[in-house]
This record gives sequence, structure tokens and C-alpha cells, in this order.
Amino acid sequence: MLYTNLSVNEKGHLTVGGVDTVALAKEYGTPLYVMDKDRVRANCRSYLGAMRKYFGEDCLPYYASKALCFADMCRLVAQEGMGLDVVSAGELYTAQKAGFPMEKVGFHGNNKTDEEIAMGISLGVGHFVADAAEEIEAIEREAARAGVTQKVLLRVTPGIDPHTHAKIATGMVDSKFGAAIETGSAMELTKKLLSCPHIAFEGFHCHVGSQIFEASPFLSAVDIMLDFIAQVMAETGYIARVLNLGGGFGVRYTEEDPKLNLEKFIHMVADHLDTKRREYGLPRLTVYMEPGRSIVADAGLTLYTVGTVKKIPGYKNYVSVDGGMADNPRYALYEAKYTVLNAERAAEKADLVCTVAGRCCESGDLIGENMMLAEPKRGEILAVLTTGAYNFSMASGYNRLARPALVWVENKESRVAVRRESLADLLEKDL
Amino acid sequence: MLYTNLSVNEKGHLTVGGVDTVALAKEYGTPLYVMDKDRVRANCRSYLGAMRKYFGEDCLPYYASKALCFADMCRLVAQEGMGLDVVSAGELYTAQKAGFPMEKVGFHGNNKTDEEIAMGISLGVGHFVADAAEEIEAIEREAARAGVTQKVLLRVTPGIDPHTHAKIATGMVDSKFGAAIETGSAMELTKKLLSCPHIAFEGFHCHVGSQIFEASPFLSAVDIMLDFIAQVMAETGYIARVLNLGGGFGVRYTEEDPKLNLEKFIHMVADHLDTKRREYGLPRLTVYMEPGRSIVADAGLTLYTVGTVKKIPGYKNYVSVDGGMADNPRYALYEAKYTVLNAERAAEKADLVCTVAGRCCESGDLIGENMMLAEPKRGEILAVLTTGAYNFSMASGYNRLARPALVWVENKESRVAVRRESLADLLEKDL
Repeated sequence: MLYTNLSVNEKGHLTVGGVDTVALAKEYGTPLYVMDKDRVRANCRSYLGAMRKYFGEDCLPYYASKALCFADMCRLVAQEGMGLDVVSAGELYTAQKAGFPMEKVGFHGNNKTDEEIAMGISLGVGHFVADAAEEIEAIEREAARAGVTQKVLLRVTPGIDPHTHAKIATGMVDSKFGAAIETGSAMELTKKLLSCPHIAFEGFHCHVGSQIFEASPFLSAVDIMLDFIAQVMAETGYIARVLNLGGGFGVRYTEEDPKLNLEKFIHMVADHLDTKRREYGLPRLTVYMEPGRSIVADAGLTLYTVGTVKKIPGYKNYVSVDGGMADNPRYALYEAKYTVLNAERAAEKADLVCTVAGRCCESGDLIGENMMLAEPKRGEILAVLTTGAYNFSMASGYNRLARPALVWVENKESRVAVRRESLADLLEKDL
Repeated sequence: MLYTNLSVNEKGHLTVGGVDTVALAKEYGTPLYVMDKDRVRANCRSYLGAMRKYFGEDCLPYYASKALCFADMCRLVAQEGMGLDVVSAGELYTAQKAGFPMEKVGFHGNNKTDEEIAMGISLGVGHFVADAAEEIEAIEREAARAGVTQKVLLRVTPGIDPHTHAKIATGMVDSKFGAAIETGSAMELTKKLLSCPHIAFEGFHCHVGSQIFEASPFLSAVDIMLDFIAQVMAETGYIARVLNLGGGFGVRYTEEDPKLNLEKFIHMVADHLDTKRREYGLPRLTVYMEPGRSIVADAGLTLYTVGTVKKIPGYKNYVSVDGGMADNPRYALYEAKYTVLNAERAAEKADLVCTVAGRCCESGDLIGENMMLAEPKRGEILAVLTTGAYNFSMASGYNRLARPALVWVENKESRVAVRRESLADLLEKDL
């Protein structure tokens, strides 16, 4: 099994957190997102533990809620003592309604509206990560209007190619995100921030990319960021207090993906950071990180019901399920790889090579190609693993498919955290 | 201008159907989907007119509602006398609530659930397009249970490569859709259908692909389908009554796309069909077609507010807007091309080369690269043209962005057809 929380019970059914997935599918219907709450908690604790150990007590992992955001998820993050990274009014509103402590919220994104900036300031978010000159001006204006001093970090593009998919490589100079060091833009915006009377400038943020399994891009980021921080100190006298190294830690979608030793990874980054800041004669920095995918991806799986099994001699076998790109667009977007199991016969030999296809009217709507499955038939349940991140959060209503429910599994019990969209819901906004 | 319903008014603002787009953005907020109702009607009439003229009075274009489906759109299609192609319970429910005549509904899709088949039969849909053996069995079972005889077409893959994007080429043998002629599967399922006592087998469906600008793939489809219909007649004595040639007619996203002469296109197909069916000694066939994109795409545009303008010397210029892949995932999915205008200065020289980027936290979230714009600044309105198809219908809530409103423009006035999602809506399903 890909993860230790998965097993097979006496009926031959796949279990997650000790709960029978076939029984879940029967009880709640399919498609169904299932999240193992204990696994999410364990992931939170791994980050918080490793970061405190190596970066010190003042560090903080901010959960990147874009990976999976709903009210009870925000409550869990709050319980675990992590910060929360939001990128929209919607994520911020969800956090607020969940009672998330606003001083531990960071407001991110490449394009915040004036209304969102005003909302963040009025709710008292801990800090903004400013992305451009226009945002700095809007934050200063709104903070002045509210009569407060707002903490702000500046997003900087360090100019690193993290050897990941082009669509999720975000640290390069040529990016819609942040201000490039190389072009002088980062220094210019730093000076602008320092000149704003209602902004308390806290330091810098960078984000290298996604699905990174090696420490080297982070070590390079540390080099570049500390060099820049030293340059800023020399040029302006300002000493950054915070360094936010972003997220991007890889998770295992298939057996081919490596296992990441998080503690070792963080240890390496922390050691490197401490060596470098001493070289530059800088004081200790407060470190933030922003894990999203690696907090939730491996805690989730999606259950589907098989509709048709088509064998096309000389071509392929197609197994169609009752969901697809509407609830999981990651194959359609990135040809992302997943591990799929026949949840009803999880211990049987998986000897049917097949394409698992979704039900949307589009050829690109696949879950994956060259999957190995114990041959399913109409009505049987399939499980797609590692769907905790960027599945629920990216779900669409394409083909007017109702969005699936999301169920928590905890202490061998299950309960609905987000209910299934109903047919009536689909028409609720139609006038 | 890309289309005749677009113009520029005395303020220099882009207008659609005679309505000022900047005023629309101010009144309803952004992002905003705008649909020109007269243009949709004109497109419906072009199809119905050309098809009746060349295929005869019994033909019917079925609007493929997956392109854009909401209650009032279904009402418009009903008023125009077209049929409606649905692919899910959600689309069927929308049609039902809109009062669409059920006998003019075709139920499509590669994977209909038993519940959907039962729902379609109980509502009295005109026909199903069966996609696989399992579906034929389910239709027969449900029709028997309901004590009715259900009309059914069989989806056949003719084995044609339509020279279109791999993700939207659907007529090839190696496809999740339909039954291949080449492998014998189509003949086998034909015999299965003919043996079902509660199924009235009506004929065949094929769909070649999307964004097709040349008649040749349709002419090839006619050849292959008539050859197969003749083969079925020889082998079983069954003479198909209906031939559904699917959709896939191209629309203009940019000036580089050709203009399709629909009437000439349909004339060519009709002539070819008539010649061929005479060669095979077949009686006249009732022809269905399934335009989706070409009914709504060019009637729609999306309005955005500019957030930031980043010039990265030596690299690119990025203009970020307040929407993106959440309301229009087509660049992220297919690198689809669009035409973008500065709606506030639509008559000015467009001399800023830029990447128009969305606001989602993802590098791949772009509207397009190498766009030419009259240089915009924060707060100005941009218009992305030809977004009437597969934008609203594919919209997600990624980054917990509220889904935009959709506004009809008609007789130089505007009204909301689908209201904007509110922050409260985002949490409505959270328990």
C-alpha cells in the first residue's frame, strides 16, 4: 500500500483509517471525497515539530488553504496551532466563520482586490504578502483609512528553476508572481514598503515551486534570499525579521515517487540558513513555511462507482467511473499520475491494464492511463489515492455534475464535513 | 472587431449588442459573463434554417447544453424550436425545471448511471444515445420496469482523426466514447439493441471532434456511417431511421481562425449524404446534429478588472485580472487562444505586448500570452471575447473564488440570468 493508513479488511475491501471504503461509498454515495483526519493531524504535527526543532519556537508553518479549504479544515488547522495562508476573500471568509485566529492568517496571492485588502485589514489578518506596487499602495491606503499599522511581507522571485512541471514552477524571474531580485524590482518595492507609514514591513517571501523532492532548490533559495536581505541591509539599513520560504514539498502519488524525509529536509535547510546568515552577519530570522499539498494530499482518497468497462481489441481497455475532471481536473490539467485500486477486491491481483476515464463529455477527461486493476464491473467501487489536495478545491460543475460530498474519517468512524451538492443547489442561482 | 455585435461607443468603450461593457462591469461587478441573447438566437436560427433547408423538415439540431447550461438558456433553446442534448442528471434537471419539452431531449454521455437512466425514462426524454453494453442493459431494465418503450440511438466511433486537439478529438477508435465499427463492437451492440423488447432502436450517432473548420471530416463520417448502416441492413435487415452527426463546428477565437460558412458546410454534407444513401439503396434518413460551442461561444464575453501591471525588463509584461482559470480554465487545459481588449479604451492603439494572467495561485493560470492591449492600469476593465462556451459551464471554485454572475444583453438592456455566488454561498454546504 502507498500509505500506512490504508489496508485491506476480511472482505477484501480497501480500508482507510480502519474504515471500509466500500461501506463509505454505499452510505454516502459516489463520487465521494474521503479524508483521514488523523493523517492530516499527523502531517500538521510533523511540520510543526520539525520546524520548531530546527528553526526555533518563533517559526510557523502556514497551511496553504488553497490545497483544501472548508470550515472544519480551518478548525483543525487552528487546533493544531498552525497559521493559515489564504489567497482570496472566500478563503478568508471561510477561516473567519470557522473561528480561525486572524492574527495567524497570511493573505497571499498575485492579485488581491481593493475590497479584499480592506476586508483583510478590517478582520485583522496577521500579515499580507504583497505581490506588486499596486498592492502596496492599496494596503497603505486601506490601513491609513482604518487607522492601523499593517504587517506586510514582500513576495520576491528568486529566479530558480526547480525542475518541476512548468505550470507549477513559480520561483522564476519570468513569473506573474512577486518582484524579481534580478531586475531591481524587489529592491524598489522594498524601499516603497519602507516608506509607507501604515505598513510594518516584516521581511520577505519566496516560493520555488511544487512537488519538490530535493532540498537543493530550497538551499538555493536561502542563498539568494540571504544575499538579497544583506543587500537591502547595506543599501537601506533595514534588517528583515521574517523569511517565508513558501511551500512545494512533494507527496507520493505513485510508488515511483520518492519518500520525502521531512525532518531531514528541514534540518538541512535550517542548518544552511544558520550558516549563511552568520556569514552575512545577520541576526536570526523568524522562518515561515507554507505546506499545503503535503498536509492533505496523502490523507485523501476519492471513491467512484464503475459504469462501463470497454475492451477495444488492439487498442485499450477503458473503465469509466461516475466522476472525473469535474471533481479531479489534475489529469486534464497536468497529466498528473495517480494510483487507483479496485476497492472491493483490493487484495486481488491487479492484472487488467486500463485507462480509467471520467464521465465528462471530453476525451481528455481521464483519471489515468496504464492503470493496473483487478477487473471491475458496473457498480463496483474504485478508489483513487492521494486526492486530498487540489481535488475538492479545484472541483467544477462541468456537465452540471453535482459536486461530491467530503467525509472525514476519524477514530474508525465517518461523518460528513461538506455535504453533496443537490440537483436543487445547481439551480439555486438561476433567476 | 472579431464579431459584428461588438462595437466602440463615443466614450471609447467596447459595446456588445449596443450595451457599454464598462457600464456592465460597474453595475454587476467583475468577473462577469455577458451573453448577447440576440446573437444566441441568430445562431440557433442559422442552424435550424440551414438544416431544414438541406436535410428536410424532420431534421433537428440538438443544442449541446454542456457548452452553457442554465435555466433561461434552456428556455431560449425551447423557444427557438431546437432539441436539447443533456449528459447528466444536472443538465436534465435544469431542462425540466425550465419547462423544456422532454420529447426533444437526447440523453448523451459515456457513462450514465442507473439512477440517471431511470430519471430520464420517468421524465420521458425523447431518446438516449447509448454508449456501451452496460447502458443498453440498464435502459432495457428501466424501460421494462416503467412499462414503456424507449427510443435509443447507438453511439459509434467512426475512426476518424479530425486534425484537432488530442483532448477534443473524440471520433477515433481508441476512445472512451461509443462502440467502434472497426472492432465489431458497433455491430454487436446493434444486435443487442434490436433484441431488447423495451427499446425502439432509432439509429446511429457519431461525433468527430471539436473546433472543426473543414467539411471533410463530416464527409468521411457520412461515408463510414452509411457504409455501416448498409452493412447492418445486410446483416440484420434493420434500416436505421436516424443519423446523428454530432457537433464540432469551429468558432472564431481570434482573427487567425477562419470564418465558417455554415450554410455551405451543411449543404455539402447534405448533398454528400443524399448521394451516398442512394448509392447504398437506403431510404432518406432523419438527420440530427449537436451544435454547442457554435451556438453560444461568439455570443459571450467575460469582463475583468485589472489588478496589477508588472513589466519585467528582458522578460515579459504581466497584466493580472480578478478572475482566471476558475472562471475560464481553457488556457490551463488546452492553451486555448482568446482575443482580449481594453474595454475602456477599445479604439486606442493596442501596443502593449503582455501576458494576461489570472489571480489563482498557479503559474499556469493565464488567459493568454502575447496579447496586444492598450496599456491598462489597476481598476480598468478588460474584455475577453468568445467566452460563451465552456467558460461558465467549466467554472470551478478554485482558490475559493466566488463564481461570477451571468448577464443577458438583449434589446440594448441587461439583466442577470445567473446571480453571482456570494461568500455565504461558499459555506452553504459546510457542516
